[in-house]
Amino acid sequence: MLRIGNGYDVHKLVEGRKLVLGGIEIPHTKGVLGHSDGDVLIHAIMDAMLGALALGDIGQHFPDTDMKYKNIDSSILLTKVTNLIKSKGYSIVNLDSIIVLQKPKVKPYIEDMRAKIASILQVEIDRVSVKATTEEKLGFTGDESGVKSYCVVLLEKM
Amino acid sequence: MLRIGNGYDVHKLVEGRKLVLGGIEIPHTKGVLGHSDGDVLIHAIMDAMLGALALGDIGQHFPDTDMKYKNIDSSILLTKVTNLIKSKGYSIVNLDSIIVLQKPKVKPYIEDMRAKIASILQVEIDRVSVKATTEEKLGFTGDESGVKSYCVVLLEKM
Amino acid sequence: MLRIGNGYDVHKLVEGRKLVLGGIEIPHTKGVLGHSDGDVLIHAIMDAMLGALALGDIGQHFPDTDMKYKNIDSSILLTKVTNLIKSKGYSIVNLDSIIVLQKPKVKPYIEDMRAKIASILQVEIDRVSVKATTEEKLGFTGDESGVKSYCVVLLEKM
Ligand SMILES: [Zn+2]
Ligand SMILES: [Zn+2]
Ligand SMILES: [Zn+2]
Repeated sequence: MLRIGNGYDVHKLVEGRKLVLGGIEIPHTKGVLGHSDGDVLIHAIMDAMLGALALGDIGQHFPDTDMKYKNIDSSILLTKVTNLIKSKGYSIVNLDSIIVLQKPKVKPYIEDMRAKIASILQVEIDRVSVKATTEEKLGFTGDESGVKSYCVVLLEKM
Repeated sequence: MLRIGNGYDVHKLVEGRKLVLGGIEIPHTKGVLGHSDGDVLIHAIMDAMLGALALGDIGQHFPDTDMKYKNIDSSILLTKVTNLIKSKGYSIVNLDSIIVLQKPKVKPYIEDMRAKIASILQVEIDRVSVKATTEEKLGFTGDESGVKSYCVVLLEKM
Repeated sequence: MLRIGNGYDVHKLVEGRKLVLGGIEIPHTKGVLGHSDGDVLIHAIMDAMLGALALGDIGQHFPDTDMKYKNIDSSILLTKVTNLIKSKGYSIVNLDSIIVLQKPKVKPYIEDMRAKIASILQVEIDRVSVKATTEEKLGFTGDESGVKSYCVVLLEKM
C-alpha cells in the first residue's frame, strides 16, 4: 500500500542566526529565523511524511508556541516523525527534495545532508535526494530575504 | 497501474469577496478573487487529478470565459473531475495538499475541509490530507495579497 | 520498484532572447535568460527524473560554467537524462508538469510540447502531462520578470 506526500516550508534569513540545512550547519553571514533551528529542508521532509499519512503538519505536532521546541535541533523532530510513520507500519520508498536559496552555494554540503537524513530515517542513502536551485535573483529567495524547500515522498506499508 | 499528479493554483485576496477554501467558508476581512468561487485548494486538487491522467487542466475544462462557471461553487467542479477520473477506471490512493496563506489561521477549519473533500471524492478521510503553512510574511502570500495551494495525488487503476 | 521525483526551475524573462518551453519556440517580446536555451519546463522534468533516482541535479550534470552547454538545446540534455534513467533499469510511469507564466498564453503550444517531450522520453503521450497557470499578476511571474516550472514524476524499475 503506497502513499504520496508533499512538503513545503519557508523561513526568513536574518543576521545573527545559524544556517542549518538538512541537519548540517553551513557557514554564512545570515541564518534562518525560526522557533526551532529553522531547518527548512527537514521541515519540508517532515511535512511530506506526515501529509502522506494524513497525520496533520509539523505546526500541529510541534507547535511554535511550545517552549520545549525553542531552538530545538530539527533532527530530533525528524526522528519523532520517523518513529510515528513506522508505528503506522509504513517505510520510506524514497524522497526527493529541493532547497531554493540564492546564497551561499550549498552543493558542497549536499552529500553530508543526504547522509545525515538517511541515517535519521534509517534508510539507504540512495532513497534520499537533496537538490539545490536558485530563483535567479527573483522573489524573496532571490533578494536573500528567505529560503524555501520542497519535498515529495513515497511511503509503502510493509 | 499508478499515476502521479501535481497541482498548483494562486488567487488574489481582495475585500468584498468570500474566503472559501476546501469548500468551507472562512470568516475574514478579505476573500478570493476568481471567476469561480476562487477555491484555490480545490483548484489545485482538480489540477493534480487531471494532470495525473494527462487530461489537461481546469482552465481547459472550465474556461473562465464561460459565464456558466461565474461564481460557481468549486465543489461542483470537483464532482465533475471525480466522475471523469472514475470513468477512466481510476480511483484515488491518496492526496496531500498545502494551503499557503498568511492570515487568517485556517487550522480550525482543516478537518471540515478534509471531510468535505473526502465526501466529494467518495474516499475515506484518511486518504485526504490538507496542511497549512505561511511564507513567514515574505512574498505575495506574506503581504496578504494572495493565497496559493499545492497538491500531489496518487491514482490507481482499479 | 517505484521512485518519485520532484523538479522546480526558474528563469528570468528578458528582451533579446527566445522563449523556448518544452522544446517549442513561442513567439513573444521576451525570452528566457539562461546558460543553455533556458527551457524551464525541460529543466524541471530533468531535475525530477534525476531526483527520483537520487542522481543529483542538472546543475551537477550540466554545469553552467561549462561552455559546452552554452545556448544548448535542452532537448539534447533531456535525451542524456533519459538514457541515464534507462541505464539504471528505470522507465517513466508518468510525469505531470506545470508552467507558471503570466504572458503569453501557452495553451496553443501545449500539445506540441507534450508530443516533443514524449518523443524524447520514448513514452506514450498520455504519460506526459503539461499544464499551464498564472500567479494572477502576483510575484515575479506576475510582473513578467520570470517564468517557473514544477514537475513530479513516477519511475518504475522494469
Ligand atoms: Zn519551518
Ligand atoms: Zn483557481
Ligand atoms: Zn533552468
